[in-house]
Amino acid sequence: MPFHLHPQLQKDCIYIGKLVLCRLLLMNDSQFPWFVLAPEIAGITEIYQLNKQQQRLLIEESSFLAERLSELYRPDKLNIAAIGNLVPQLHIHHVVRYRTDKAWPAPVWGKFPAVAYSEQEITDITRLVKNALEEP
Amino acid sequence: MPFHLHPQLQKDCIYIGKLVLCRLLLMNDSQFPWFVLAPEIAGITEIYQLNKQQQRLLIEESSFLAERLSELYRPDKLNIAAIGNLVPQLHIHHVVRYRTDKAWPAPVWGKFPAVAYSEQEITDITRLVKNALEEP
Repeated sequence: MPFHLHPQLQKDCIYIGKLVLCRLLLMNDSQFPWFVLAPEIAGITEIYQLNKQQQRLLIEESSFLAERLSELYRPDKLNIAAIGNLVPQLHIHHVVRYRTDKAWPAPVWGKFPAVAYSEQEITDITRLVKNALEEP
Repeated sequence: MPFHLHPQLQKDCIYIGKLVLCRLLLMNDSQFPWFVLAPEIAGITEIYQLNKQQQRLLIEESSFLAERLSELYRPDKLNIAAIGNLVPQLHIHHVVRYRTDKAWPAPVWGKFPAVAYSEQEITDITRLVKNALEEP
């Protein structure tokens, strides 16, 4: 069964790149630096449904992304979550949080309507994050 | 540095048992079957700060718990998250969600004040979950 990104993620997110297991997406919400990892495996809604090798890749890729985001954004906290109440296809949020952001200390999900980035901002963030992930 | 569970987790949760890496806790909120895995490593606030071996154990234990909770509770969705905006010590929520629960489809965090279990309910859930985890 081929993998197709859920239409809602297609709509809400911007493609940044591909790791070994996961597709890396930017949530199109300029209120929070917010990234999504979607394992490119069809028919999966929960992490435990991935096989052991895929689970290991997932936590490796998630931690790699999280560490690079920490270096890049110097957050007060990262919020990492597989929720999927609205979009059941497995996807893991990586949200950069600051004590000064508009949702703190609440989680961001379902809190505020998204505010889209400009084209220039999307170009800049995509370049910034791709470069950070490609650094040795 | 010895590991001590954060006082807020001590206060909010009930001890169920110990896996290899993590302490398993029950959130004392009868509105949702809600479990917490806290890696017993001092000074960690983010998953990526665990070493590679600990990260693998974490996803193994999280997936083991998630699969057993799925068999036990037949949820519509699991919500698995490392947030920590209020309690920075690393702990991973595993929340059993139903389309009929009072917070659906919103996440549960910060949504409703906790409603404590009775002593009998705590005894029952602890036994139920311990048995489920000990099954072959």
